[in-house]
Amino acid sequence: MKININASYTDFYELTMSQVYFLEKRNEKAIFDYYFRNHPFEGGYTVFAGLQDALAIINNFTFPEETISYLKDCGFNSEFLKYLENFSFTGNIYAMKEGEIVFPDTPILIVEAPIIEAQIIETVLLNILNYQSLIATKARRIRQEANDKILIDMGFRRGHATGALFGSKAAIIGGFDATSNVFAAKKFDLPLSGTMAHSFVQSYENEIDAFREYAKIHPNSSTFLVDTYNTLASGVPNAIQVAHEMEEKGYKLQAVRLDSGDLAYLSKQTRKMLDGSNLQYVKIVASNQLDEWVIKSLKEQSAPIDIYGIGTNLITGKPDASLDGVYKLSEYNGIPKMKFSDNIIKISTPCKKQVFRVFDNEEGFYGADAIALFEEEYVNKIYHPFDIRKKNDIRNKKQERLLELVMSNKEILVKKKSIFDIAKYSEKRLSLLHLEYKRFQNPHIYKVGLSEDLKQIRDTLILKNS
Amino acid sequence: MKININASYTDFYELTMSQVYFLEKRNEKAIFDYYFRNHPFEGGYTVFAGLQDALAIINNFTFPEETISYLKDCGFNSEFLKYLENFSFTGNIYAMKEGEIVFPDTPILIVEAPIIEAQIIETVLLNILNYQSLIATKARRIRQEANDKILIDMGFRRGHATGALFGSKAAIIGGFDATSNVFAAKKFDLPLSGTMAHSFVQSYENEIDAFREYAKIHPNSSTFLVDTYNTLASGVPNAIQVAHEMEEKGYKLQAVRLDSGDLAYLSKQTRKMLDGSNLQYVKIVASNQLDEWVIKSLKEQSAPIDIYGIGTNLITGKPDASLDGVYKLSEYNGIPKMKFSDNIIKISTPCKKQVFRVFDNEEGFYGADAIALFEEEYVNKIYHPFDIRKKNDIRNKKQERLLELVMSNKEILVKKKSIFDIAKYSEKRLSLLHLEYKRFQNPHIYKVGLSEDLKQIRDTLILKNS
Repeated sequence: MKININASYTDFYELTMSQVYFLEKRNEKAIFDYYFRNHPFEGGYTVFAGLQDALAIINNFTFPEETISYLKDCGFNSEFLKYLENFSFTGNIYAMKEGEIVFPDTPILIVEAPIIEAQIIETVLLNILNYQSLIATKARRIRQEANDKILIDMGFRRGHATGALFGSKAAIIGGFDATSNVFAAKKFDLPLSGTMAHSFVQSYENEIDAFREYAKIHPNSSTFLVDTYNTLASGVPNAIQVAHEMEEKGYKLQAVRLDSGDLAYLSKQTRKMLDGSNLQYVKIVASNQLDEWVIKSLKEQSAPIDIYGIGTNLITGKPDASLDGVYKLSEYNGIPKMKFSDNIIKISTPCKKQVFRVFDNEEGFYGADAIALFEEEYVNKIYHPFDIRKKNDIRNKKQERLLELVMSNKEILVKKKSIFDIAKYSEKRLSLLHLEYKRFQNPHIYKVGLSEDLKQIRDTLILKNS
Repeated sequence: MKININASYTDFYELTMSQVYFLEKRNEKAIFDYYFRNHPFEGGYTVFAGLQDALAIINNFTFPEETISYLKDCGFNSEFLKYLENFSFTGNIYAMKEGEIVFPDTPILIVEAPIIEAQIIETVLLNILNYQSLIATKARRIRQEANDKILIDMGFRRGHATGALFGSKAAIIGGFDATSNVFAAKKFDLPLSGTMAHSFVQSYENEIDAFREYAKIHPNSSTFLVDTYNTLASGVPNAIQVAHEMEEKGYKLQAVRLDSGDLAYLSKQTRKMLDGSNLQYVKIVASNQLDEWVIKSLKEQSAPIDIYGIGTNLITGKPDASLDGVYKLSEYNGIPKMKFSDNIIKISTPCKKQVFRVFDNEEGFYGADAIALFEEEYVNKIYHPFDIRKKNDIRNKKQERLLELVMSNKEILVKKKSIFDIAKYSEKRLSLLHLEYKRFQNPHIYKVGLSEDLKQIRDTLILKNS
């Protein structure tokens, strides 16, 4: 089965609206902001991921002939279809760096293009960025608890069909070491890892035969799954015996894997048995419904686990399963635009904008991003979006412009990075975020403030509408 | 971006285990069962979906040259790679009909093939069937509450990347009427539907201009989004005015859409305003974080909503986000196999099996599936898997064999069905399930019983192992 992502990777209304724009000759420059409203997992930070894929896709976003004829059958206007035949995205995209640590209500990516183009790429942008940012964030939370333990993504079988391809990649951005997903590893050049299934052990007459034959073929990379029959009475003793047999031939068993039962208890018993047999070097892999909370608990119980295999909870981004990223119009034909709402915090911010990351004196993140008009060079004061009592002088603080031009004139302007380089950047940035924003329970809220000029324009628009 | 699903769509350990089998010449016939342990959403039934895709993929499951050279770089044995170069799935697959109503611990699909082949297709089977069954089940639950209202899938932007392609399709199997996802609609021949985005309204100087121009271009298929500025003070009055202008030209406004605020309150007010303007025919679409529970509540409040647009909660299968389907070895080289576990209910069932759906006298489902040896023609008595007090005589009841041969000798043996035919079959089957299994809270548990012969073989194996 072949899946060819082209410009039909869009929602129907993007096309029906675009047909109106086209026939009414209303294809002026629009500016759209991509942002989200809430951190996933009730956390204090989100990792921005998926940018490289999104840009690569948009750079080749055309309507193949068969899609055009399909849309003809759907009843679209023939002049409009001629336009779509020659469609390509010609606009500008500004974005933060992939891997950046990002916060709610702050534009992470901005599209500046004729409104039809900006509208037609909406769905793919949201679809690719929302999912990968969700998974990179989940992975980073797990990494945060796992410290320097090895983390393996084993979620392929529970991923949402082909979406797992992107999830396994985003897990590496979030700090995972390797994946079981061969398809993703090949496509994105990720390290592979795997152990053994229960079926392998079952297929042999005796558990020990399964271990022996696996070790014979993979003498330098064997991990034995020890819970098929009885972990402590059979699996671990058999693994120990084969490990000693391997030593006689000059090889070393890598690890044993626990996939059921009480992982804290079993890992301690297993460690004792291994150490008692002079197999201090054999590592313990644990899997079975793990997530950041279970790992936190295992750590608190001093469970001697060296490698965690994480499946379902990672690849589906459980329990949230989505990042609520949106794409809102902030300017059309030079006129600032807003979406109003009865709920004041759902009001969008108008104008072409720039985001400044502010630093404190210890060279960590200050705790508030400044949103300003795109042209502003430096932000003197930031204002709470709604609480008029709250403002903050940031004149003497280091500020970094986060949004940079990443696509223009049909060209991707940022150098392609390896997934591990993105992961490294992300890790470095997270190290600049103070601990109180990183804790899992009721994390401190990273603020967003508007520059004086931006706030003035926005407030004028609000009052005009009310 | 092109995604070509080939045999590299697998987990790494499938290949490392297969290399052992290959080099040790242990490629005898194996039988694997696909089943799940728990209904998603704490519900009382699950809809089986994804079979056609899984079979189509497996029927073309080969290792392209570049994958072989990639695996060579991963260190695989050259003789084994030669085998993979000529790999194809030659075994038998038995499965229930796509759309079948299925229950935990019952084999839904059985693979009978040389163990290497059976192992290499494990990941893709789980990946495709788990996700689609999850979404078809979520959709069916929503359909159950929505009765005959129109249901539109709007989840593309929150789907897990390309996984949304399969989710939008599975939603139709679960009883949805249409999707916003053009990519899925084209691939699977699904009806399309869409309304209008806030950006469309915002891009105009006045809300009413946006409505007018949309109606001009789409006079027979206009739905106006009425919450961009103020639903009752601006959106609905403007929609009413344009609806009257459309009437003068002989057209009818299809609907207005509410996407924020209190949907119960707003839909009632909107209905009153529309009716008061003689626009009884204009329908009301509601969207914004809907799921089966919200629809249930809206119904209880008599909210006059005609069409529901469901996004995130549908396409991600929230809150579960996964079906816990597994793939367990039940026979190798003619020898029955089991996975043991400290937890008795996690023990797998050995042997090549058949599942009988039992009917009661009212021609509804009896409330227990019978699992028997494959050769058994009819099941006289079923036994509770673990509670020796419980057995049941089903001699006089109608029984249907659910597992049929769907692939053999590299050929798919079931006729390709349209997605709507699968949906219709599924709906019909669900109508045979009594209400107490369909309620959302603490649904009655549909039982699974073993035939006498199967239970005997299994118990002998358990005792042998203990």
